[in-house]
Amino acid sequence: MGINAPLNRKLRMGMVGGGQGSFIGRVHSIAACLDNRAVVTAGALSSNPERSKASAPDYAISEDRAYGSYEDMLDGESKLPDDQRIDFVSITTPNHTHFEVALAAVEAGFNVVCDKPMTFDLAQAEQLAKAVDQSDVIFALSHNYTGYPLIRQAREMIANGDLGEIQAIRSNYIQGWLRTRLEDSDQKQAAWRTDPTKSGAAGCFGDIATHAYNLGRYMTGLLPEQISCHLKTFEPGRKLDDYGTAVIRYENGALGTVTASQISHGRENDVTIEIDGTKGALQWRQENPNEMIVRANGQPHKIYTRDPNAPHTTAGAAAACRLPSGHPEGFFEAFANVYASAFDAMVARAEGGPIERVNTIYPNVNDGVEGMYFIQQCVASSKQDAAWLPLKHERARR
Amino acid sequence: MGINAPLNRKLRMGMVGGGQGSFIGRVHSIAACLDNRAVVTAGALSSNPERSKASAPDYAISEDRAYGSYEDMLDGESKLPDDQRIDFVSITTPNHTHFEVALAAVEAGFNVVCDKPMTFDLAQAEQLAKAVDQSDVIFALSHNYTGYPLIRQAREMIANGDLGEIQAIRSNYIQGWLRTRLEDSDQKQAAWRTDPTKSGAAGCFGDIATHAYNLGRYMTGLLPEQISCHLKTFEPGRKLDDYGTAVIRYENGALGTVTASQISHGRENDVTIEIDGTKGALQWRQENPNEMIVRANGQPHKIYTRDPNAPHTTAGAAAACRLPSGHPEGFFEAFANVYASAFDAMVARAEGGPIERVNTIYPNVNDGVEGMYFIQQCVASSKQDAAWLPLKHERARR
Amino acid sequence: MGINAPLNRKLRMGMVGGGQGSFIGRVHSIAACLDNRAVVTAGALSSNPERSKASAPDYAISEDRAYGSYEDMLDGESKLPDDQRIDFVSITTPNHTHFEVALAAVEAGFNVVCDKPMTFDLAQAEQLAKAVDQSDVIFALSHNYTGYPLIRQAREMIANGDLGEIQAIRSNYIQGWLRTRLEDSDQKQAAWRTDPTKSGAAGCFGDIATHAYNLGRYMTGLLPEQISCHLKTFEPGRKLDDYGTAVIRYENGALGTVTASQISHGRENDVTIEIDGTKGALQWRQENPNEMIVRANGQPHKIYTRDPNAPHTTAGAAAACRLPSGHPEGFFEAFANVYASAFDAMVARAEGGPIERVNTIYPNVNDGVEGMYFIQQCVASSKQDAAWLPLKHERARR
Amino acid sequence: MGINAPLNRKLRMGMVGGGQGSFIGRVHSIAACLDNRAVVTAGALSSNPERSKASAPDYAISEDRAYGSYEDMLDGESKLPDDQRIDFVSITTPNHTHFEVALAAVEAGFNVVCDKPMTFDLAQAEQLAKAVDQSDVIFALSHNYTGYPLIRQAREMIANGDLGEIQAIRSNYIQGWLRTRLEDSDQKQAAWRTDPTKSGAAGCFGDIATHAYNLGRYMTGLLPEQISCHLKTFEPGRKLDDYGTAVIRYENGALGTVTASQISHGRENDVTIEIDGTKGALQWRQENPNEMIVRANGQPHKIYTRDPNAPHTTAGAAAACRLPSGHPEGFFEAFANVYASAFDAMVARAEGGPIERVNTIYPNVNDGVEGMYFIQQCVASSKQDAAWLPLKHERARR
Repeated sequence: MGINAPLNRKLRMGMVGGGQGSFIGRVHSIAACLDNRAVVTAGALSSNPERSKASAPDYAISEDRAYGSYEDMLDGESKLPDDQRIDFVSITTPNHTHFEVALAAVEAGFNVVCDKPMTFDLAQAEQLAKAVDQSDVIFALSHNYTGYPLIRQAREMIANGDLGEIQAIRSNYIQGWLRTRLEDSDQKQAAWRTDPTKSGAAGCFGDIATHAYNLGRYMTGLLPEQISCHLKTFEPGRKLDDYGTAVIRYENGALGTVTASQISHGRENDVTIEIDGTKGALQWRQENPNEMIVRANGQPHKIYTRDPNAPHTTAGAAAACRLPSGHPEGFFEAFANVYASAFDAMVARAEGGPIERVNTIYPNVNDGVEGMYFIQQCVASSKQDAAWLPLKHERARR
Repeated sequence: MGINAPLNRKLRMGMVGGGQGSFIGRVHSIAACLDNRAVVTAGALSSNPERSKASAPDYAISEDRAYGSYEDMLDGESKLPDDQRIDFVSITTPNHTHFEVALAAVEAGFNVVCDKPMTFDLAQAEQLAKAVDQSDVIFALSHNYTGYPLIRQAREMIANGDLGEIQAIRSNYIQGWLRTRLEDSDQKQAAWRTDPTKSGAAGCFGDIATHAYNLGRYMTGLLPEQISCHLKTFEPGRKLDDYGTAVIRYENGALGTVTASQISHGRENDVTIEIDGTKGALQWRQENPNEMIVRANGQPHKIYTRDPNAPHTTAGAAAACRLPSGHPEGFFEAFANVYASAFDAMVARAEGGPIERVNTIYPNVNDGVEGMYFIQQCVASSKQDAAWLPLKHERARR
Repeated sequence: MGINAPLNRKLRMGMVGGGQGSFIGRVHSIAACLDNRAVVTAGALSSNPERSKASAPDYAISEDRAYGSYEDMLDGESKLPDDQRIDFVSITTPNHTHFEVALAAVEAGFNVVCDKPMTFDLAQAEQLAKAVDQSDVIFALSHNYTGYPLIRQAREMIANGDLGEIQAIRSNYIQGWLRTRLEDSDQKQAAWRTDPTKSGAAGCFGDIATHAYNLGRYMTGLLPEQISCHLKTFEPGRKLDDYGTAVIRYENGALGTVTASQISHGRENDVTIEIDGTKGALQWRQENPNEMIVRANGQPHKIYTRDPNAPHTTAGAAAACRLPSGHPEGFFEAFANVYASAFDAMVARAEGGPIERVNTIYPNVNDGVEGMYFIQQCVASSKQDAAWLPLKHERARR
Repeated sequence: MGINAPLNRKLRMGMVGGGQGSFIGRVHSIAACLDNRAVVTAGALSSNPERSKASAPDYAISEDRAYGSYEDMLDGESKLPDDQRIDFVSITTPNHTHFEVALAAVEAGFNVVCDKPMTFDLAQAEQLAKAVDQSDVIFALSHNYTGYPLIRQAREMIANGDLGEIQAIRSNYIQGWLRTRLEDSDQKQAAWRTDPTKSGAAGCFGDIATHAYNLGRYMTGLLPEQISCHLKTFEPGRKLDDYGTAVIRYENGALGTVTASQISHGRENDVTIEIDGTKGALQWRQENPNEMIVRANGQPHKIYTRDPNAPHTTAGAAAACRLPSGHPEGFFEAFANVYASAFDAMVARAEGGPIERVNTIYPNVNDGVEGMYFIQQCVASSKQDAAWLPLKHERARR
C-alpha cells in the first residue's frame, strides 16, 4: 500500500490560493500532506496581500514564507538555497487565474499541481503546454477522480484487454446545488462558477462534465473523433449552462455519452461511468467508490472492492490503497493519489530520470489542453445546433 | 388494492400467438388472468394451423375454441352469442404481423391488447389508429413498464405538480444478451428481433429504446419537439442497430436523453429513468421496481416504496398494488396492471360509458403511433448524421 | 422455465377461507392459478355460511360449488365423480382453525396446501402429521419464501458442497406495522395476529420468526440441537410478543441466530439470511429477491441474479423461474413455486409414484411440526430466562 | 466544517508503536495530522530500540526526538521546555502493552490517545481509569467508528428524542479474513490477534465485537444490565474465539444483540447497526458510511447523507464533516474526528477549562473500562453456557 512508501524527506509545497473561506485550497493541502510526503512550506494564499499573510497560520506556514502575492512567492523561493526552496507549487485559485500563475511557476522552474480546468481557454492551455514542454518540470492537474484505486484498476484491466475492445462509454455527473440562483446570494462557490469572466466559456460543462469526460478518456485511452453537444441554462438569468449532454464518436467506432447537471434536486456529486467492451463491461459510482461492478455474459456479476490484498487487484490499484478492504477510502484519498503519483514523478525527475509527458498516471498538462478543447468544442457545437465538431487534439493522451 | 376489485364475470380472452416456444404469449396469458378477471377462452396460437391447435391444451382452451388461424378465430367468435364470444383479443405474435391481426380484430369489433411495437411501420400504425377511432373498441398496447405502481405514483405526482415544471428526463434501457450473434444460433427470440423483415426499421431502438422513451412520455406528459439520434451496430454482420443514443427537445424547453444497448455484457433488463423538475427530482429502476427515490434540495432523500397503505401513496399507485409493502411485486404484476386498466375501460365501454382515446392509464393506440414515429425518426436522424428531426405527432398523448 | 411445464388438465382447487376482506386467500388463489395448472373450482370461503356463498363470484366459483362450510365442501366434493371432484384443498383461514380443516381434508383423502403456522400448537401438529403418514395425500405448507428461485439455488449449492461445511446462519425478519396497538383499531390482520386464542402461544415469533428459522433449515438441512430464546412485548397491553431473538446450536456445531420484530419503524417485510460455510458464504434479502451475493475470500464478490439461462444456475432454481433475468419476479411467483412443487407431487401421486414425506422441495407436514416445535420451545425458553432447550424434533427435515 | 477550525499552533504528537510494518500506527499519524492541527514530533516506534530509531524518518521525526523506548520518550520529553514538549502520546502498540505505556504517560502528565482495546484485562483498565481520574490529562480511546459524522448525527437525534424511547439495538461486525489459520503463516496482524498472551481473553469479541457494542452504547446512552454470550472457535487449533453472538438486556427494558465474525468468507469490515425507537428507527453501515436510513411508519424512508449544509444535519455531525455532501469521506476522516474531539478537549484543558470524564464526544478511559468489562463478561458468560451476567459498570457512559 502506498501508505508505506519510503521517504527520504518531505517535499516542500508552496500554495497559491487557499486563504480564508477557500474550500479547494484546504483539500489540496490535506491531499498533498496525507501521506506525510509533503509539508506546506510557503504560501500566497489570497489575491489580497494582507489576507494572504493573515491566512498563513492556518497552514502553519512560518511568517517568512507567507507571501503577499504569487509573484513574490516565486521570486522569494527562487532565491532560497536548494535545501530550503519549495519543491512544487499548488494552484488552487479561481479558474481564470490559473494560467498566469502556472505559466510563471513553470518558467521559474517549479513543479506544478494545478486545479482544473487548467486555464480560462484553449489558447492559454496550449501556450502553457508549450512552456511545460520546454521546461523540465512536472505538471499535474487535479482531475482527482482518476485517483480512486478502482478507477486505476479499471484502467489497468482495460489496458490489459480484460474487457476486449471498448465500444461504449456512458458517463454522467449529476448535481443539484445550483437548482436556484445561489449566485445571487453570498455564496462564493456559486458566484465564480456561474460567472463567465471567471469560469470560462462553460458553466456546468466546464466545472463537472469535463470530469466525466476525462474519466472515460483516462480509463480507456480511446481517442475521440467528433462531438455533438447540447447545453441548457435552466435557471433564468444565469449566464452559463447548468445542464447539458454530449455524444462523442471515438476513432475506433465506439460511442460515448456525457450528461452533466447542476440542477437535479438533491443530487450531490453523482459521477457515474459505465464502459462496455467486447469481452466485459464495468460500472462505477463516485458516491460509493470502493466498489466496481464487472460483468460478463453467462457469469455472476462481480463486485470488485478496493482491496490491496486481493489476487485480482492490479498493481496500480493496490499501490493506490492506504487501508485494507472494507474500510472506506474517499475523496481525500483519491485526491492524494494524484499528488502521490505526481510526487513519484518529481522524485524521479530530481533523480535525473526521463520525464513522461503524455500517458502519465497523474493527469498532466496535455490532459488540461484536452479538457479546454472539450469545453471549447462543446460550447461551439451547442451554439451550432449540436453540430458535429472535431474533438481530437494533437496533444491527446493515448 | 386492485386485487380485491369486485367482478361480475370473467372476461373472455382470445389469444393470437403464444404457441409452443413462445415467451411473450405466456406472459400475456398470466398477466391477463392474474386477478381472476379474465380467462383464456379461445386461441389462434400459431401461424401453423396444426401447431396452433396442438398448443391449445397448454392454455386449457377447449377444442372447439382452438382455431387454426386468427381469421378463423375472428370469424368463429363473431358468430357466437354475446354470452360466449370472446371479449378481447391479445396479439402476441412477432412485430411484423401485429398490424393485420389488430386491424382485423378492430374491424370485427373486438377489443384488443397488442404487444409492442404496435406495427411494422408508421403508415400501418396511423391506419390502425384511424380504424380504432372509427370503432368503439378499447385498444391497449403492452408498454408494460407503465404498469408498475411506482411509475403510476410518479405520473400522478408530476401531474399534481409535486416536482414542479419538468426540465430533464434521462432514461436508459441496457441489455447484454445480443453481445454475440445469437441470431446465428437457433435462438428464436434473437432471430426475429435482428431481422429487418420481421422487426421493422430498428433493432435495439425498436425493441427497447421505445420503452425507455415511452416511460418518460407517460410519466411526464411533456410534448416532444425534435430528436437527434445516433444508432450503432456493434456486432459485425448484424442487420439492425444494437446500440444507440438519442437527444430529445421537448416543447417546454426540457431536454431528454435515451440510451439503449443490447451489447452491454451482463446487463439484463436495466431500465432506468431520472426526471428533474424545478421542485423535485425522482429516480427509478426496473430491476428494483418497488422503490423510487424522490429528492429535493435541503431534504433527506426519500425512498418511496410500493405501499398501498401509505398516506403519501397516490390513488392510482395504490390501486395498482396487490400486496402490502415489502413483499416484492414484479414484471407480471406490472403487466397485469396494463391489462387491468384496459379491463376497466372494456367494462366501462360495455356499460355504455364514453371512451377516452388519448390520455388513458393504459398505453393506447395513439401511444403505439407515437412509438412507431419515434422509431422512424430515430432511424432517419441516424442516417442523416444525427440531424434534428421533428418528433411531435398529432396523436401524441398530452 | 416452469412456465412452460406441459399440463394435461388443470387441477381443481377447493378454497377454505379467502372471503371478502381476506388477504392471504387471494394470495393463495393467485399463486395456485398463476401457471394455469389449477383453477378455483369450489370454496367454503368464510366461517359464516352466507358470506361464504356471497364471496364465491369473486373467484368465479359456480353456485353449486359454493359451500357454506368446509365440512359441506368436503362432503359435497367427496360425492362427485373423479373427473369433477376437487384435487386439493387450500386452507387460508386464521391459524387456530387450520388443524380441524386440515385433518378433515386429509382424512377425506384430499391433498392439502395449508397456510402457516400449520396448527395452533405442537400436539395438533403431531396428530396431523400422523394422519398424513397414514394417508396417501400430498400435504404442503406455505412457507412461501422457500419458493424463491435463489433460495432454491442456495439450497442446491449447499447440498452440493459449494459452501463447504455450514457453520453460521444469521436470519432476521424485521417488520414495523405493529409498532402501535393496531389491534385496538378495526384492523383485522392485527387483531387475530395479536390474540393468543387465535394466533397461538407466540405473536411475532409465531408469525414471522418461524419463516426466518425455516428458511435456514430449508436451505442448509442442518439439524438443530438446542435453542435459547428471549421474547419481548414492547407495545404495552399487547398479549403476545412483538420482538425477540433466539440463538440456535446445530448438531454439527454451527451457530444460528434469529431475530424478529414487528415494532421497527418503517420496516416492511425485511427477511434476510446470511450463511457462512468453510468454503463460501452467501447473503439474500426478500425485499430484493432476484439477487444473492456469494462470497469467497480472495475472489470478487459475486452477485447471482435469478437467471434461468445462466450456466451457474442450478436445475431447481432454473425450474422455478418464469421470466428471463432482469425482469423481477416477486412474492406471488415464489408462492406459486410452492404450489407448483406440490402440484408436481400431486401429479406423481396420481400417477402412482411413491410419496416423499421428509426432504421435499415444498415445505411439508413435518416442516409444520418443526415450526410448531420451534414456537413452543421459544416461548418456553423465554419463560425460563432464555434457558437452553432441545430443538430437534424426530420429524425434522434432514 | 471542522476542516476550517482555526488553530494557533500545531499540537505535538509522540508516537509509541508504528514502526516499519505497522498498520495502525500509520493510521493514527494520518488521522492526527489530517487537519493540520498536529504534527508527529517524537516517537518510540518499536519495542526494538534500533528499529525504533530507524523508523523515525518515515514520520519525518528528527533524530533527537527518535527514542529507543517509550520510557526514554516520556523522560526525554518531560525535560523539554513547554514550547517544545509533546502535547500528547499516541499508543499504537499491540494490546497487551497498552496498559504500561498509557499508565506511564498519564502519570507523567501527558495527554493520551490509546488504541483499543484499552488494556489486557479489566483490572488494568480500572487501575488506568483511576490514574486518569487523579490526573488532569485528556485520555481518548480510538473507538474510531464513533467519529463518523452520521454516527454523531444519530447520537444527537437520539439524545434529542427524535426516535423516542430506544427499545432495540442490533449491531454486527462481520469479517472473513481469519477464515483460515492465517496466524500460522507470517501474517503479523493475524498472529497477535489470535494469541491470548497478546490479545487478551477474547479474539473476535475483543477485537471487533467491542466496536459493535460500543457503537450502540455511544449512540443511545442506554445503560446495560445483563449479557448472555456464546463464543465459538470455528478454525480448528485456534486459541481464541473467531465467532460469537451476545444478547444484552438494557436497564430500560430494551434488547440488544451483537454478532461478530472473523470467518465469514469475503466479508470485509461490515459493521452494521440498527436502532429501533418508539418514534423512529435508523440503520447504518460502515462500508457505506455517508448514508443513514431513518424510518417512521407512514412516511417515505429517509436517506440522510453526510451533508454539512443540510438543515436536518445536527451541529455535531456538521462539525465532523470536511467535505460537502456527495464527496465520500471514510475511515481516516472518522478516525481523525476522534482525534479532533480529543484535541478540542486538550486545548480546553490547556486553557484551564474543566475536564469532562464520562459523556465526552470522544471515547474515553471509562469507555475503555466498559469495553474490557464487556469482554470479560462475554468470555465468562460463554464459559457458563451463555448464563446471564451483569454488564453495567459503575464507570459506564450515560
